[in-house]
Amino acid sequence: MSGPHPHRDTRTHLIAEGLAAMLRHGYDGVGIGGILAAAEVPKGSFYHFFASKEDFALAVLDAYQAHYAALRRALFVQAERPALDRLNAYLDSLEAMHRAERPLGGCLYGVLAQTAGARGDRVRASLTTIIANWQDDLATLLTEAGAPDPDETAALLIDCYEGALIRAKADPAALAPGFTRLRRLLRTLTEPPLPAH
Amino acid sequence: MSGPHPHRDTRTHLIAEGLAAMLRHGYDGVGIGGILAAAEVPKGSFYHFFASKEDFALAVLDAYQAHYAALRRALFVQAERPALDRLNAYLDSLEAMHRAERPLGGCLYGVLAQTAGARGDRVRASLTTIIANWQDDLATLLTEAGAPDPDETAALLIDCYEGALIRAKADPAALAPGFTRLRRLLRTLTEPPLPAH
Repeated sequence: MSGPHPHRDTRTHLIAEGLAAMLRHGYDGVGIGGILAAAEVPKGSFYHFFASKEDFALAVLDAYQAHYAALRRALFVQAERPALDRLNAYLDSLEAMHRAERPLGGCLYGVLAQTAGARGDRVRASLTTIIANWQDDLATLLTEAGAPDPDETAALLIDCYEGALIRAKADPAALAPGFTRLRRLLRTLTEPPLPAH
Repeated sequence: MSGPHPHRDTRTHLIAEGLAAMLRHGYDGVGIGGILAAAEVPKGSFYHFFASKEDFALAVLDAYQAHYAALRRALFVQAERPALDRLNAYLDSLEAMHRAERPLGGCLYGVLAQTAGARGDRVRASLTTIIANWQDDLATLLTEAGAPDPDETAALLIDCYEGALIRAKADPAALAPGFTRLRRLLRTLTEPPLPAH
């Protein structure tokens, strides 16, 4: 039997604290000192795992995207369910997750993209790749659903999701209507084209 | 003849510096010290105009929304042009403005909504009101254009715009495709409903 992995636990713990802080304050509003205090981890330990704040942000971003990619895999691969049902279940899961957040954190991609400190080339490239993979996953399912323009529709769903979360961070009451709009948009854009008259 | 208004100029100057800094770094990433240094204004002068960083952010937000509200008024009131042409001209203006930004600042509403420091009740209430007014202006024009569901469509356009700017801040090459999606969405959602078969 292998024992616990204290190093790995510390790293995971730092990443969890970093995620919570970055969702609330943005990249530029987060100091390593605050993360260390919240995680009760000494400075040397942080630099054992992460060479810089940018490396840390990249690790937080990677853990975050892995969580969401796993959610998509779990829901999207259920081949016995109609593809549109799977997409709606995915929207339901996202809404339930955001409803449970106190305070509402929104989407790390949106938060990191907004603040310039995070716009070093590596963070920007990582965000761009992550969003492209997300869009590909949605487009694959939309293709299966027979949507007329899967890639375009996937891109619109992502834009609307990010925009709805921005509003909800200003006004939590806007969260539910935002998801209602997203579901209607999905319905509108996946309707088969009507035959020409 | 009245002379110049040095006080007013200092206030305007501080707001311009604050806007540039907040667009890049978010609310939590902006320090008053940095604003004062960039504006070459002494500390006492800042506190002559603004009681706190939150008051300052509210003033920046107000100046920003006034600029965009004026753009909408100028374009939306041209009653001789079809309403959809006016909406497309509005999207063209927004795209041209963002294309000219170096670096791309995106939308202050999105940036401020994302970072928790700005989520004091007053900033959140101001953001919520500003977005509601924006949505009302768009819905009025969409009603004139005969769109089937003006308020819902206005809300979707705002969500998609904010989401498209998030992507563009990660990857400037995403700006033009984002606006192309926005124009197509406008076209799709303003098509008159087809008669039932």
